[in-house]
Amino acid sequence: MLIPVRWMTSMLLPLMAGICLLPAMAVAAEVSSETQGCLGCHSMVTPGIVADWKASRHSRITPAEGLKKDAKERRISAAEIGGGLGETTVGCAECHMLNADRHPDSFDHNGYTIHTVVSPADCASCHPVEVDEFDENLMSQAHANLMDNPVYQMLVDSANGMHEFSEGAIHFKASDEITNADSCLSCHGTDVQVTGTETRVTSMGEMTFPVLANWPNAGVGRLNPDGTVGACSSCHMRHQFSIEVARKPYTCAQCHKGPDVPAYKVYSVSVHGNLFKSLEKNWDFEAVPWTVGKDFTAPTCATCHASLVVDENGQVLAERSHRMNDRLPWRIFGLPYAHPHPIDADTTKIVNQAGLHLPTELSGEPVGKFLIGKQEMAERQERMEAVCAGCHSAQWIEGHFARLDRSIETTNHMTLQATGVLSQAWQEGLARGIPQQANPFDEAIELKWVEQWLFYGNSIRFASAMAGADYGVFANGRWYQNKNLQEMFDTLKFLRASQSDKP
Amino acid sequence: MLIPVRWMTSMLLPLMAGICLLPAMAVAAEVSSETQGCLGCHSMVTPGIVADWKASRHSRITPAEGLKKDAKERRISAAEIGGGLGETTVGCAECHMLNADRHPDSFDHNGYTIHTVVSPADCASCHPVEVDEFDENLMSQAHANLMDNPVYQMLVDSANGMHEFSEGAIHFKASDEITNADSCLSCHGTDVQVTGTETRVTSMGEMTFPVLANWPNAGVGRLNPDGTVGACSSCHMRHQFSIEVARKPYTCAQCHKGPDVPAYKVYSVSVHGNLFKSLEKNWDFEAVPWTVGKDFTAPTCATCHASLVVDENGQVLAERSHRMNDRLPWRIFGLPYAHPHPIDADTTKIVNQAGLHLPTELSGEPVGKFLIGKQEMAERQERMEAVCAGCHSAQWIEGHFARLDRSIETTNHMTLQATGVLSQAWQEGLARGIPQQANPFDEAIELKWVEQWLFYGNSIRFASAMAGADYGVFANGRWYQNKNLQEMFDTLKFLRASQSDKP
Amino acid sequence: MLIPVRWMTSMLLPLMAGICLLPAMAVAAEVSSETQGCLGCHSMVTPGIVADWKASRHSRITPAEGLKKDAKERRISAAEIGGGLGETTVGCAECHMLNADRHPDSFDHNGYTIHTVVSPADCASCHPVEVDEFDENLMSQAHANLMDNPVYQMLVDSANGMHEFSEGAIHFKASDEITNADSCLSCHGTDVQVTGTETRVTSMGEMTFPVLANWPNAGVGRLNPDGTVGACSSCHMRHQFSIEVARKPYTCAQCHKGPDVPAYKVYSVSVHGNLFKSLEKNWDFEAVPWTVGKDFTAPTCATCHASLVVDENGQVLAERSHRMNDRLPWRIFGLPYAHPHPIDADTTKIVNQAGLHLPTELSGEPVGKFLIGKQEMAERQERMEAVCAGCHSAQWIEGHFARLDRSIETTNHMTLQATGVLSQAWQEGLARGIPQQANPFDEAIELKWVEQWLFYGNSIRFASAMAGADYGVFANGRWYQNKNLQEMFDTLKFLRASQSDKP
Repeated sequence: MLIPVRWMTSMLLPLMAGICLLPAMAVAAEVSSETQGCLGCHSMVTPGIVADWKASRHSRITPAEGLKKDAKERRISAAEIGGGLGETTVGCAECHMLNADRHPDSFDHNGYTIHTVVSPADCASCHPVEVDEFDENLMSQAHANLMDNPVYQMLVDSANGMHEFSEGAIHFKASDEITNADSCLSCHGTDVQVTGTETRVTSMGEMTFPVLANWPNAGVGRLNPDGTVGACSSCHMRHQFSIEVARKPYTCAQCHKGPDVPAYKVYSVSVHGNLFKSLEKNWDFEAVPWTVGKDFTAPTCATCHASLVVDENGQVLAERSHRMNDRLPWRIFGLPYAHPHPIDADTTKIVNQAGLHLPTELSGEPVGKFLIGKQEMAERQERMEAVCAGCHSAQWIEGHFARLDRSIETTNHMTLQATGVLSQAWQEGLARGIPQQANPFDEAIELKWVEQWLFYGNSIRFASAMAGADYGVFANGRWYQNKNLQEMFDTLKFLRASQSDKP
Repeated sequence: MLIPVRWMTSMLLPLMAGICLLPAMAVAAEVSSETQGCLGCHSMVTPGIVADWKASRHSRITPAEGLKKDAKERRISAAEIGGGLGETTVGCAECHMLNADRHPDSFDHNGYTIHTVVSPADCASCHPVEVDEFDENLMSQAHANLMDNPVYQMLVDSANGMHEFSEGAIHFKASDEITNADSCLSCHGTDVQVTGTETRVTSMGEMTFPVLANWPNAGVGRLNPDGTVGACSSCHMRHQFSIEVARKPYTCAQCHKGPDVPAYKVYSVSVHGNLFKSLEKNWDFEAVPWTVGKDFTAPTCATCHASLVVDENGQVLAERSHRMNDRLPWRIFGLPYAHPHPIDADTTKIVNQAGLHLPTELSGEPVGKFLIGKQEMAERQERMEAVCAGCHSAQWIEGHFARLDRSIETTNHMTLQATGVLSQAWQEGLARGIPQQANPFDEAIELKWVEQWLFYGNSIRFASAMAGADYGVFANGRWYQNKNLQEMFDTLKFLRASQSDKP
Repeated sequence: MLIPVRWMTSMLLPLMAGICLLPAMAVAAEVSSETQGCLGCHSMVTPGIVADWKASRHSRITPAEGLKKDAKERRISAAEIGGGLGETTVGCAECHMLNADRHPDSFDHNGYTIHTVVSPADCASCHPVEVDEFDENLMSQAHANLMDNPVYQMLVDSANGMHEFSEGAIHFKASDEITNADSCLSCHGTDVQVTGTETRVTSMGEMTFPVLANWPNAGVGRLNPDGTVGACSSCHMRHQFSIEVARKPYTCAQCHKGPDVPAYKVYSVSVHGNLFKSLEKNWDFEAVPWTVGKDFTAPTCATCHASLVVDENGQVLAERSHRMNDRLPWRIFGLPYAHPHPIDADTTKIVNQAGLHLPTELSGEPVGKFLIGKQEMAERQERMEAVCAGCHSAQWIEGHFARLDRSIETTNHMTLQATGVLSQAWQEGLARGIPQQANPFDEAIELKWVEQWLFYGNSIRFASAMAGADYGVFANGRWYQNKNLQEMFDTLKFLRASQSDKP
């Protein structure tokens, strides 16, 4: 534990005398006395986040004022706000002291009972609709959907394990908690737990804090100490909680840019992405509701997937949703085959005929009973098309989505062919996988198979969905989908040759 | 066909009564009555594009006013403008009703005869020089140059076909129209054709529209229903047609960012790209002519390749050109070997000694009679250097281009070595290609060969041309060019071993 | 040599009469007469860089005025400024005529003795502390550390050489000077030398200039004609020398974006990068000192690695440093294993027990005597954490860096396993490398081994260090680290099979 010397001399004396200094700060009158207490020290201890908060809407308007706005302009979804909140701005104390008894990470901090991990349950005091919707969002279940699904657990181990080469073979090892927290769970969310307390020497003297396992983390499916799931701060970054940031595509890019889910990359080569980058300086990312043509002239991720979008005539093109898949009939990434969206955000309960926790068979056949039906798909499609219709004709929209439908068909076909090659390898004993009840993700040819769908299939479908053609051809697209199939086929031949070569 | 319910209630009644509402809009007096008719409905039906147009120069100035500007400031290249255009702003009707009899996609729409696909011939009413230049641009022929060249057709099929693995072999399949439209032709342009008419139930009641095959599309080489080629909207996005957007590199990035043509990526790691991203907020992307030092202090794609560039003393550094290759002696991407630019934008007529429609032999030897000569190359080089000279000394410029010359030499050499390995595989029957009159793009080792030039050779040359060194070394550059050659050589050995292993 | 005809007519006459024209320019009164002489012609000859300079601080304030500022606000580190500098603005002449006798590239230019290559020794007239620090920065030695280390020289040759396939084998060739200048040395710096003089016909008539080998270049470790190393213009781009540009991540991205050192890419998917891109329009990149919360609310590269950072209370979070590694205990890229930073910026003197010029053994064991010790590592870590503490709690910071520590451990482990596979190949004679005293970088399996650390190990460590998880998993991260190991293992088997197959 290191103590910045710079604070020691200037601050320790008054602090030891029990005095907390409030520097001259431009804070409005409605700041609660508790928050003023926090600011007194934290404007010196963590000046960056205090300044961030001062730039936030939370610091400038009280919930009571927010409640007076017209329905469409309102950012608060609660009908009324209890628990003593409302008349002061939403400062440090209003969130970090809320629901104290429900937080196992609550601790005494200079006479205040605060908790470190603000959870969706805290945010729900003012934003209950958003929290409820997010609970039905696949993203809120991202931790369990990855870590509690035996199939995916093997994939995680394959990527993250410290495998060993010895005695002429590679020995597979499971992954460890800290590596998982640093990789997959950075987006999926860690399991944050209170494991004890510790005393630290701080610039403010000795202090006791709860010890948090798997901290820090702001993954969308974070398991919080209070038993809730999710982290609003994934997209609404502390401590500005800026709607501008959430609406810009860079926020989504934090987790949706890699080869497994190249949404941002596809967007960046689409006309929409071009117009955003070229013209966004003229747009208003703060307005609620968000008016097409007036506030922006091309969509960002939020426009199509989440925001309340209206036109200048006051008509609603799309309702706000934090479920995120309200406008998505198809689930186009993360699984071997594209398929209708799962009914339930918790996908660990899905199991196919082969007993695998996957929403399709290895042949691509969807496991229907866990997935939404045609009616629900049509309704979701309709909601999405209503956004498109703000700028595009019906024929344009139909032509566009016909291409996505075809890409779902062709990529599923190409995954099936790769599955055929891999099955042949398994059958001939050239690799050991599902027929041998062995890990299907631990040999080179198996990893190539994964890339067929996890990289190339996903990329092509995103490219079709968002009209960023490069990612459907040479940038991890159809070119690689074919090349990978051909290389899997060559690998099959080479494995045979190296096998037959054995004494 | 889905009808947004929101419109039904509020709008159907007045519409059925034959009344079109014009909401209070800030549109100048010179809007034609036809365009006012369009706006009456479309400000409600497609509010985004109406707002876009209202933000455009087309909505703010009439062609007649535009014609009064000084030559260098003029954005209209027509000496005079006929056909009833000129005295009103350029609104919906001015483009979508123009040359109605030449448009097979013309149809009656609420009493107006309009067409969906505005073509370069329409734009030529005011911008004839630009359209003529673009006709001589390789880009305008991008559809035929890809789809009517048998060599490239095989490449398209290889990437896009739904190949099949069955009975221990991979069976090659041709690509289909919708997949091609969604991938290669998204940039190259589709063949848009009127295939009939259809009646749709719209928010405005039942209406009849032409059915357009291969729609939507805004590829640079689009085949339009009126028989013209090209789409001005590829770079001048509807409906702002903003010169700012066209001049920013994000527009070019839509099609020039992938591994086959990484121009934007190279730019983004160059000093030029850095200065653009860091300082563009201070630049003027609307000014015509475009003044170095005053309007911008580092070039974008447009500066070097297309724009009319002047200095503060009024001297012309470069004339505007929509031929795009006026300042390019070498064609450095898309083909196995870099070579002098083709004389004619239509490259389907090029044929080498081996009978392939390629501008070089497989040995790299250029097919001289189809390519520009040394004199033309020198003139193009001089035009480009005049732009460089706005900021750089003669020695700097010479040093820079000497590196590009060397890269052309080394990458052609490395392609030749890869061709040698592949030829060896063909000769030994380990793969089937040109000697067997078989597809040279359908086996793994052949696809590696393609990447040698289509990815790595291209990337290195772009990196040299635009000084973005990363893309010449580790980011798809020389590192991969060598690694790929070594892997092709290993593949040759492994193919032999797996062959000899056969009974 | 091409002469822009446009200048000939308008300018040659007055020039031949010995008159240099000063156009009406908005230049302050303190411009030296020598600089006015330069501007007279160069505002016409290279208008872009003159405009750039006019936008610079150098053109707006004299060093004498700069010296009057308070210590923290001062941009000049010299206590006093001699050599006749100080009372005029810093124009063309002040830099290009400085220390004339020390510059072998000095030449007579219209009566002025000027040199082309301004070196750190010139900049040191006003900025001596920065130059001294940069001399102790690994970056200043980037040329020799690459080119004078026999191990790395082989790596350079491998990537850049014009290898040949003939008679059934690939023949390795060394790289050439111009290709190296265009690739590795673009960032590492070339060896710029005066090789003679030449006469050119310019728009100003015949003129004689020194001939500079390996020019142009602005690499960080450039060898300058005056015997100094480094190029300040790598990050402080001519001729605005804008601190805004240096502080924005695009500058670092010029050399730190490729797969070997993906710092910018990692940043761009981190919360920090998101906030920069989403909110930078509101930030002040010109302020000195740089105040967290007031001038910016999330760090750029410069914030954490170089800048003088203070808080609104005037406390210093971090002192300015151009050594760059003052806040870095670990060297996490460029070498097979992560290890404590070298003591000396000149790493050519490092040699391990095996006689290789590497800071670790092939087993990963650090060569302790050349590397900083635990105490120095702790001090560097403390300096970095003081920046983090501007916004983050101690527990957050500890949790973050524990993940980096773990990544260093796991990536070193995975490199060791790949080294095991390669050693096995060498031992069995399936490849020829270190045991055979052959180039360890010239066969496919060896190049895969290089990628294990140069691409994947580096990427994972950067992802951990800067919290951009994507680059630690599927974007060149742990996924590839495992896949590459598995493919090396397969290659070993295939090489055996193809070997045993030989007659």
